[in-house]
Amino acid sequence: MIKSTISNDTGHNRHKSFDIAVDTMGGDLGPSAVVEGAFRAAAKYPHVHMKLVGPQDMLQYEIKKYPQLSNISILHAPDVIMPNETPTIAIREKKTSSIVVGLRAVKLGEAQGFVSAGSTGALLTGATVIIGREKGIERPALGTLLPTATGFTLLLDCGANMDCKPSYLAQFGQIGAEYMQRVMGISNPRVGLINVGAEDEKGNEAAKEAFPLLAASNLNFIGNIEGREILADAVDVAVCDGFTGNVVLKFAEGFVKTLLGMIKTELLATTRTKLGAMLAKPAFAKIKTRMDYREIGGAPFLGLKSLVIKAHGSSDALAIQNAIRQCVTFVENTKSED
Amino acid sequence: MIKSTISNDTGHNRHKSFDIAVDTMGGDLGPSAVVEGAFRAAAKYPHVHMKLVGPQDMLQYEIKKYPQLSNISILHAPDVIMPNETPTIAIREKKTSSIVVGLRAVKLGEAQGFVSAGSTGALLTGATVIIGREKGIERPALGTLLPTATGFTLLLDCGANMDCKPSYLAQFGQIGAEYMQRVMGISNPRVGLINVGAEDEKGNEAAKEAFPLLAASNLNFIGNIEGREILADAVDVAVCDGFTGNVVLKFAEGFVKTLLGMIKTELLATTRTKLGAMLAKPAFAKIKTRMDYREIGGAPFLGLKSLVIKAHGSSDALAIQNAIRQCVTFVENTKSED
Repeated sequence: MIKSTISNDTGHNRHKSFDIAVDTMGGDLGPSAVVEGAFRAAAKYPHVHMKLVGPQDMLQYEIKKYPQLSNISILHAPDVIMPNETPTIAIREKKTSSIVVGLRAVKLGEAQGFVSAGSTGALLTGATVIIGREKGIERPALGTLLPTATGFTLLLDCGANMDCKPSYLAQFGQIGAEYMQRVMGISNPRVGLINVGAEDEKGNEAAKEAFPLLAASNLNFIGNIEGREILADAVDVAVCDGFTGNVVLKFAEGFVKTLLGMIKTELLATTRTKLGAMLAKPAFAKIKTRMDYREIGGAPFLGLKSLVIKAHGSSDALAIQNAIRQCVTFVENTKSED
Repeated sequence: MIKSTISNDTGHNRHKSFDIAVDTMGGDLGPSAVVEGAFRAAAKYPHVHMKLVGPQDMLQYEIKKYPQLSNISILHAPDVIMPNETPTIAIREKKTSSIVVGLRAVKLGEAQGFVSAGSTGALLTGATVIIGREKGIERPALGTLLPTATGFTLLLDCGANMDCKPSYLAQFGQIGAEYMQRVMGISNPRVGLINVGAEDEKGNEAAKEAFPLLAASNLNFIGNIEGREILADAVDVAVCDGFTGNVVLKFAEGFVKTLLGMIKTELLATTRTKLGAMLAKPAFAKIKTRMDYREIGGAPFLGLKSLVIKAHGSSDALAIQNAIRQCVTFVENTKSED
C-alpha cells in the first residue's frame, strides 16, 4: 500500500539555513568548473552553506580565485573514485573519496543534500548504502527531466534498477510525484505507467501488477501511457523499470543527434536551404537551450532520506549551479516533520 | 545453440512465380487504397500473383476500376476482425475473416507471404497459430526498420513478446539478421543486444543471459549497444524484448512530433526565422520522405514459416505496394531448400 507523503504546502524551510555538499572531483571538466558553479550558487542562496568536497590543498587554491564568501567551506577528501571501478568495492574501500565523504556528511546531518558529477554507479550504490532509503521505499530510482512542448516530464527509473518488482514501480510513482511537487512546483502531479497500450491488462508482468498498486494509491494516477505520450504533456511523472528508462533516455540522446545531423546535411545541400538555415538560426538556438541539460540541472536520485543529484559528467559551472538549485528547492519544500 | 541459416546467395527464386495474399480489410483508408497498392505491385512484379482477400462482391467492384491484370485474383472473405476484438477469440471464431482466410492460404501453400493493415493483435496471434513458427524459433517477433543517417536499423521485438526468455532474444538476432540479408541485401548483418552499457555483465537478467547465447552463435554479434547507438549506424539489427522495443518505437514517434512542433513554433516566432523556414523547406521535405513509413514499408513479423507484413493502419497505396515489395524480396531471396 502506498501512502503519498505529498503536501500542498511549500516553502516550509525557506530562508532557514542549511548545507549542501558538492563533490568537486569526478567531473570531466575538473574541479574548477564545479567550484565556480558552487560559488555562483553560494552568491545566489546566501542562507545555504556550500561544502566543497575534495582534496583540501587543491580546493584552497581554487577558492582563492573568488572573493571570499562566508557560506563556502571545504570538506577534505583526498581520494577519488574512478568511473571504471566496481561501485560496491570502491564505496567500501575508498573511505576518504569525495563521494563517500560527501555522502557521510549527509548521513551525519552535516549536509541536507549532495551534488556529484562523478561515477554514477558509485554514487547510486554509495547513496543507498550510506544515506539509506526513505521510509517505505524499497529501491531508490534515478530520475531525468525531459523537456516537453510546455514543461517537463520526470522519467524514472533511468537505470538504477534493472529488473523491478511491481511494488518498486508503484513507489517510483510516489517519489517521482514528490519531486515534481517539491522542486518543480507542480500541484497534484499526474503519474503515468509506461506500457505498450492504454488498457490496464496490457504489458509485461511487472507493469500489469504495478497498475492496480498505482490505481489504489493516493497518487494522481492517470493509467498506462504509451511511449509516444512520454513527451506529450500527458503526465508529469512517467514510471518504468530502469532498463526501459535507460534505453529510452539514451535513445532520445542519439535520436536528437541523428535528426539534427540529417537536418544539417540537408540544409547544407543547396544555396537556397543554406540561406534559409542562416536566417532560421535563432529558432534552432532557442530549441537547443530548451534541450540543454545544463539549464535543467542534474538527475535526481530519489527515494533516499536526503536528495542526491547526479550531475552530468561534463557539467560546467552553470550545470552545477542548477544541480545545487534542485537540492536547495527540494530542502526548502520539505516539511520539517519528514 | 543458434545456427544461422543465412546464405550469401541471393535471388534463388527470382522470376519464379509465386503468390502473395493481401488483406483488403482493416486499413484505415478502406479497401480501395489497398486494392490500388496491390494493382501497382502486380504491374511491377508480373511474375507475382496478388490474391486480394476480402468480400467478393466489393472486391469485384473495386478491381473494375483498373485495366485487367492476369496476376490479380480474389480470395473471398466476407468477415473482418475489428481492432477492439480479443485476438485469440477472434481468430478462433471468425474463420471467414480476411486475416484468417489470408493466413490459411499461406498455411496451405496457396500464398508465400501475407500483407495486412488490420488488427495487430489478431494478425500476430493468427500468424503464429495458423502459419506456425520457423524451425528452432520459440517466439516470432515484430520488427521495425528505423532510418539512420546512412541506412536502416531493424529494431525487434517491437511488441509481440513482453517478458522474454534469453533464448528468445538470441533467436530475435537470428531472424532479424536473416531479414536484413534477404530483404535489405546486407551481407553479414551486424547484430547488437540493446542494453544499459557496453560491458557484457550489464543489464537485466534476460539481457545478461542472452549475451553469451548471441556470442556463441554464428551471427555477426557485435555485443551490447546502448539506446543512443540504435540509430548510430552501429548495427543492422538491434535486439530487445517486445516491451522495451515497443516503448522505444512509440517514443520515437512522439519525439519526432514534439521536436518538429518545437521547431515549427520557433520558426514562426519572427519574420526572419519565418523567411528562413520558407527557404529551408526543401531540406525538411527530404527528411520527411526519409522518415516516411510509406516508403519503408510495413513491419515484418519474423520467425514464421512464411513472411507476414503488418502494414501501418493508415497505409495508402504506396505503403501497401512497398509492404508487398518486402514479401516479394523475401521470397525471392529464400533458398528453395528452406
